[in-house]
Amino acid sequence: MTKWVYRFGGGSAEGSAGMRELLGGKGANLAEMCNLALPVPPGFTITTAACTAYYANDGQLPGEVETQAKEALDHIAALVGGKFGERDNPLLVSVRSGARASMPGMMDTVLNLGLNDVTVEGLAERAGDARFAYDSYRRFIQMYANVVLEMDHDLFEAILEEYKEEKGYHLDTDLDAKDWIGITGQFKALVGSELGKPFPQDVNTQLWGAVNAVFGSWNTPRAITYRRLHSIPDDWGTAVNVQAMVFGNMGDTSATGVAFTRNPATGEKQLYGEFLINAQGEDVVAGIRTPHAITEEARKKANDKRYSLEAAMPQSFRELRAICDKLEAHYQDMQDLEFTVQDGKLWMLQTRNGKRTAEAALKIAVDMAAEGLIDKKEAVNRIEPASLDQLLHPTLDPDAPRDLIATGLPASPGAASGEISFTADDAEAKTAAGHDVILVRMETSPEDIHGMHAARGILTARGGMTSHAAVVARGMGTPCVSGAGALRIDADAKTMTAGGRVFTEGDIITIDGAAGEIMAGKVATRDPELSGDFATLMSWADEIRVMKVRANAETPEDARMARSFGAEGIGLCRTEHMFFEADRIVAVREMILSPDEAGRRKALDKLLPMQRRDFVQLFTIMSGLPVTIRLLDPPLHEFLPQTKKETARVAKVMGVEPAVLKARMLELEEYNPMLGHRGCRLAVTYPELAEMQARAIFEAALEVHENSGETVTPEVMVPLVATKAELDMIKGIIDKVAEEVHQEAGTQIEYSVGTMIELPRAALMAGKIAETAAFFSFGTNDLTQTTFGVSRDDAARFLNEYVQKGILEADPFVTLDVEGVGQLVQMGVERGRAARPGMKMGICGEHGGDPASITFCGKVGLDYVSCSPFRIPIARLAAAQCETGENTHSTA
Amino acid sequence: MTKWVYRFGGGSAEGSAGMRELLGGKGANLAEMCNLALPVPPGFTITTAACTAYYANDGQLPGEVETQAKEALDHIAALVGGKFGERDNPLLVSVRSGARASMPGMMDTVLNLGLNDVTVEGLAERAGDARFAYDSYRRFIQMYANVVLEMDHDLFEAILEEYKEEKGYHLDTDLDAKDWIGITGQFKALVGSELGKPFPQDVNTQLWGAVNAVFGSWNTPRAITYRRLHSIPDDWGTAVNVQAMVFGNMGDTSATGVAFTRNPATGEKQLYGEFLINAQGEDVVAGIRTPHAITEEARKKANDKRYSLEAAMPQSFRELRAICDKLEAHYQDMQDLEFTVQDGKLWMLQTRNGKRTAEAALKIAVDMAAEGLIDKKEAVNRIEPASLDQLLHPTLDPDAPRDLIATGLPASPGAASGEISFTADDAEAKTAAGHDVILVRMETSPEDIHGMHAARGILTARGGMTSHAAVVARGMGTPCVSGAGALRIDADAKTMTAGGRVFTEGDIITIDGAAGEIMAGKVATRDPELSGDFATLMSWADEIRVMKVRANAETPEDARMARSFGAEGIGLCRTEHMFFEADRIVAVREMILSPDEAGRRKALDKLLPMQRRDFVQLFTIMSGLPVTIRLLDPPLHEFLPQTKKETARVAKVMGVEPAVLKARMLELEEYNPMLGHRGCRLAVTYPELAEMQARAIFEAALEVHENSGETVTPEVMVPLVATKAELDMIKGIIDKVAEEVHQEAGTQIEYSVGTMIELPRAALMAGKIAETAAFFSFGTNDLTQTTFGVSRDDAARFLNEYVQKGILEADPFVTLDVEGVGQLVQMGVERGRAARPGMKMGICGEHGGDPASITFCGKVGLDYVSCSPFRIPIARLAAAQCETGENTHSTA
Repeated sequence: MTKWVYRFGGGSAEGSAGMRELLGGKGANLAEMCNLALPVPPGFTITTAACTAYYANDGQLPGEVETQAKEALDHIAALVGGKFGERDNPLLVSVRSGARASMPGMMDTVLNLGLNDVTVEGLAERAGDARFAYDSYRRFIQMYANVVLEMDHDLFEAILEEYKEEKGYHLDTDLDAKDWIGITGQFKALVGSELGKPFPQDVNTQLWGAVNAVFGSWNTPRAITYRRLHSIPDDWGTAVNVQAMVFGNMGDTSATGVAFTRNPATGEKQLYGEFLINAQGEDVVAGIRTPHAITEEARKKANDKRYSLEAAMPQSFRELRAICDKLEAHYQDMQDLEFTVQDGKLWMLQTRNGKRTAEAALKIAVDMAAEGLIDKKEAVNRIEPASLDQLLHPTLDPDAPRDLIATGLPASPGAASGEISFTADDAEAKTAAGHDVILVRMETSPEDIHGMHAARGILTARGGMTSHAAVVARGMGTPCVSGAGALRIDADAKTMTAGGRVFTEGDIITIDGAAGEIMAGKVATRDPELSGDFATLMSWADEIRVMKVRANAETPEDARMARSFGAEGIGLCRTEHMFFEADRIVAVREMILSPDEAGRRKALDKLLPMQRRDFVQLFTIMSGLPVTIRLLDPPLHEFLPQTKKETARVAKVMGVEPAVLKARMLELEEYNPMLGHRGCRLAVTYPELAEMQARAIFEAALEVHENSGETVTPEVMVPLVATKAELDMIKGIIDKVAEEVHQEAGTQIEYSVGTMIELPRAALMAGKIAETAAFFSFGTNDLTQTTFGVSRDDAARFLNEYVQKGILEADPFVTLDVEGVGQLVQMGVERGRAARPGMKMGICGEHGGDPASITFCGKVGLDYVSCSPFRIPIARLAAAQCETGENTHSTA
Repeated sequence: MTKWVYRFGGGSAEGSAGMRELLGGKGANLAEMCNLALPVPPGFTITTAACTAYYANDGQLPGEVETQAKEALDHIAALVGGKFGERDNPLLVSVRSGARASMPGMMDTVLNLGLNDVTVEGLAERAGDARFAYDSYRRFIQMYANVVLEMDHDLFEAILEEYKEEKGYHLDTDLDAKDWIGITGQFKALVGSELGKPFPQDVNTQLWGAVNAVFGSWNTPRAITYRRLHSIPDDWGTAVNVQAMVFGNMGDTSATGVAFTRNPATGEKQLYGEFLINAQGEDVVAGIRTPHAITEEARKKANDKRYSLEAAMPQSFRELRAICDKLEAHYQDMQDLEFTVQDGKLWMLQTRNGKRTAEAALKIAVDMAAEGLIDKKEAVNRIEPASLDQLLHPTLDPDAPRDLIATGLPASPGAASGEISFTADDAEAKTAAGHDVILVRMETSPEDIHGMHAARGILTARGGMTSHAAVVARGMGTPCVSGAGALRIDADAKTMTAGGRVFTEGDIITIDGAAGEIMAGKVATRDPELSGDFATLMSWADEIRVMKVRANAETPEDARMARSFGAEGIGLCRTEHMFFEADRIVAVREMILSPDEAGRRKALDKLLPMQRRDFVQLFTIMSGLPVTIRLLDPPLHEFLPQTKKETARVAKVMGVEPAVLKARMLELEEYNPMLGHRGCRLAVTYPELAEMQARAIFEAALEVHENSGETVTPEVMVPLVATKAELDMIKGIIDKVAEEVHQEAGTQIEYSVGTMIELPRAALMAGKIAETAAFFSFGTNDLTQTTFGVSRDDAARFLNEYVQKGILEADPFVTLDVEGVGQLVQMGVERGRAARPGMKMGICGEHGGDPASITFCGKVGLDYVSCSPFRIPIARLAAAQCETGENTHSTA
């Protein structure tokens, strides 16, 4: 016989905290509290297996469930000394759902079940309080009708409000027993008229109606969507908890409340919570009455004149405090509790790991480790890496009023306010004049870099999470909202329209890059404060982790920032970013426009000293840490001017006819630049370009070595390789230049040549390519694009819909698609290392800063992840968590 | 001891035809002829292994080679009764290279080796003919100086010409012994002055100089390039054949010639060849004297008054004819022979499978099978499938003069002449007026379809082998040259410039789509003539093959064409092509421009009957054969007008402001349309589109069934699937529509829903996707694009260079990249069939018509290939060859 029902109460339980899978979170913790001999009203849990059986059997529960539940109900009755459905001493129960992970969208709770027109009288007699009994009854009818019979909650509220208005009452406490009897009658009449049948008077009908409603709610569309979004398997199912009622609404010696063992906002070690006297659970959260503070300390701090639990019910308070300590010690985590005091006796109704802010999580983890409650590993494990963003960037003041005008994608975290600028030039000029600026563009391009640098925030109407704007903003640590499709931006007219409101240049807006929100006017922000706890936790993470963390950086500022955040090297220096700087873009364009190799070489000769200087700076800042430099990657047309005006200007500077420039631009134009003449294909057709870059790298390495004595070992990285032959050819060029520089300088140059694995073919052929490549860096941005056949610049149009419709669980450009793209990464690692044992491998796509993706990187055995400077702390933490096993915080 | 040298001659040989790998083609066949007791001058072969050793050892041959060769040389001397380097009876030898596959670019032949100032006198005395001896000597000096000492051939010719002019001679035969002695002296002086050392008089120096030159020539740049282009491994190496000389230049009883056992141009069964009396081998091909016909029949046919071999040397002729019959029977293939008659005795110097035209190959294969020489399988195996193109399309008259102005890619076979038209409209109008037109465009777009249909040929300056122009042209069977980068096309000015020459509208040009050549003026063409042999061979192929062959077709014309070529169904009906037709493009644009679903549905309602009519036609023509219909694939912006003028016209027709149209077009614009909002992504965001198409398909199937009684089982194919969830959703739509149509009609609809596997992720996830898909069709065009990260529209800029530099062996859009993309195809097949045993799978990319790719398809177990109608015979043949094993013709 399958055991479908697990009992708890009376100082013991058949279940325990370890049986979360079978009993759900709530049931497992109720059992655990019983086992800890805490005062828990007796009850039982119908298992998640029953839920599975329910669905396997077309919404029918196995007969055994009913039998076992009936016996368990008798057991409860025996413990509390009442009987389910009997007039004289009626047993009342609560029915609650309880899945493995807490899950909104499902039926939650029915209280006071077992009341009917008969038992309510018995309850009134026994409690000696008719008001209490009918208050309970009306609550039951309303709750049951709402969650089981699916009637609108407001219909009941309307009756109550009308009644109070008629009678001139203000508070629910103004109503006496008679009033509630009348209301109860009206409620029952409403049910009858709405549903065409009376409110169920049979207590077993009530019970099984509620139980079936819980199981049925597992598959409501809202619940299904929630599961999809949070990767909760459909077959987990939910459990149902049936528990004897205790009453916080039995007069002034009764109360109900919620408590946290530590402050969930700040993390301070202090009992924290709220309660109400003479109330039932839902009153505390419903906002009809303002709950009181639990402790005297909190009361004083809030300058609340009303009594605290500590003052009003000192005995129950002491008990509660002791239980809090016991539970925290037992669960080794901050607990979120529900309790009820019935006629002076404290009962515990729930405990679970409490949700908390990032700040609190950090403090609690570090404090608990200091208290010896948990070890450092566990402390590291407790922090959701992504939550660090809240600690590293300005955030909106949660209390400040907001005038939301549109939403977009949360492209780069942080909040910022400023005047709208529609061009990069304007943004730069205004910033120079001392204004705060938000750069607003349809989309950004490399031409806008100077304006993006100047702006406090960036807002685009087009582009996804990995669009140019998003990637660059994240790299700079600048807040950015991208892909705000509802905005109409007219850069010529210098207007931005949102929901009919027109904003012009100089109007102030605020963006929240963590939430993807755009607000009119200035919204107060809070600057991040990094506590000592942060440094402590990060140092623990560093002790634990095996994977190295490097930065994607090319400017001296980024490199310095990266080091200050703890980067252990540069994993990706994108040399193209250097080409856009004002002092060299002309030479770059000269090179591109030259009709022959001789002309290109002349232009490259001009670029060489500048490029060398770039690398000297980087090598100097990174003082001996590894630096991976990627050869030029984007198609050359990206460097050409974008607008007519710009074209004319460039033509003038270069002394050519605009028509000539135009013709060359047309020649370079591509249908699909992402799949075009870029990456190592540039070096194959223009070897002189790779020669110049290699020379700049090696000469810089020598120069820094001479100046600082530091040994620089550059890692030269060839992008977009699809075949071994490409890499062979380009490595040949690099080796030749190294040999030349070596001859000229008389000093040996240490370096290695590796490649990006960013095309499916490269992953498939990794074994061959590894014969030539000294290292691999997985470029998962491009790899995701090609594996999915999706351009991240164009994805905004449909990818959101994909996530909304549940076709994709997450944007694969944000979190690595382990199932698909991950296969290719794994293949690349395995085949590469089979050919070259111990081969160094890393990741340098945007995924290198995404915790879930980092976990995958750890699993497949990468040596390092590389990400934008601002994500380095996140990556350090996530990398540490690869070693500490499953995250526990996400199921809290 | 390694055996480096294999002897032959004197009626036996150490080698045989089966030892081609070790002895090279020539050496193996010489040995084989000896074993057949044919008259072959004795000699020996230094193996290809010696070549490998030579390169492994820095260009030094192992000492054993010399020892063994010396012994073999003595053996020759003993057989012919002379001695190498001895004055009185000097042994002379020829030295020839002989790789496994015949390979231009390598050192070919040195004749008369062993002559020096001393032995020449002995030869003169022994032959009683000083003229013959010095003629041989001067030939030797010139040949040796050219191929071994790398001197310019023309320097020697100049001396001879000057001499003849001085003396007033016309023919070489005018020169007597004295003359040749003088010439020989001048030749030696030339060598001395050019090289600074005398012509080698030591015969062993001569011999090893020649042998080393053969081995050295294996790695000349020309030879390396040739190998790369023909996929011949570098480590095969070449063999060297050293053979006793026989002399065709020993007076009027001597002769030399070449012969084919059948006519290599027509395939007719008749001995065919040329010869010269009193000449050495190179004279026949040098063109100094015009060779005579071998047979009387040929002589008469050519109306040649000069004697034939049959008439002049009847005994040798009879012997030769007998040998031809023997060799053909032995090798079971048409042979290409070299022979020499020395003083009335016939000697065989070479035999090999003869090269032949496609027409001849076909006739020979069918004839030989009829003669019982080979079986049907072998006959099928003998025809290079790609060569059928020559039989199916008009070709240029090989004798017509040509004025070549530029070259491009051989995008679609066939030759055509016509007047230049620069727009599709012009092309259509001119054709309607009775002119032949060549449509000349920078590139074509779907807007040009009507002009492409009208034109006799298509020429573009941009785009690769799988560009729009190329794909559409091949589909239509229209000749096309694409990517002719040297052309400057100015469509506005209506001029085309090539090499400084300007062509204007109406000028006549000719294109050869098989060769990729563009010529000024009209070049005569020959229409294809399909002999009965063609039908015979194709029927044999059909008997043998297992893989089905379907067509990529959507128009009734294409479908009919496909059936006439033997298609067994439609593997790919691209519904987008139907959307461009004049009667519906307006409704298509209306749909695209509608701001909401209601508007789109209205437009789709207009399209439904037209689309249904399309399918009724197709189903009717295909009468019960399977038809795979792909839902709309390209991004919607492809259907919008391309030019300003067009936009204005469309705006007017649709009654909207051009600005509105422009704005929507801008909104739909994509950076990388290939990776954009297309394929099944359209159906995910606009389900109503898929609904309309599904309805049209099912209603058409029912209609055709009612009208014809034929059961139509449409295969509905969903494009660009990356995840199972996409397919689930769209299959849901299709199934729902099927159910609706079923309800409306009261008749059950048989159909299946499958998907393209054209993204790496789809191949990786094939197991999952196969849970939903009833069939897979590998879309290897897109799969190649995404696996390589190369856009075929943009590839022309670098892909040619890749092939030229040997980075890629072949254009992966023409021949499937088995090594890389092939892995994904194989994965797709294996994982798909693991989930759904026996799952139907095919290929519908351009590769479906490429023989090498078809071989791969057969190997991985596809059920069918689908290709453009004109390639169906090729595919049928290639599919048959999958069953007959290795092709033999390619190594002939």
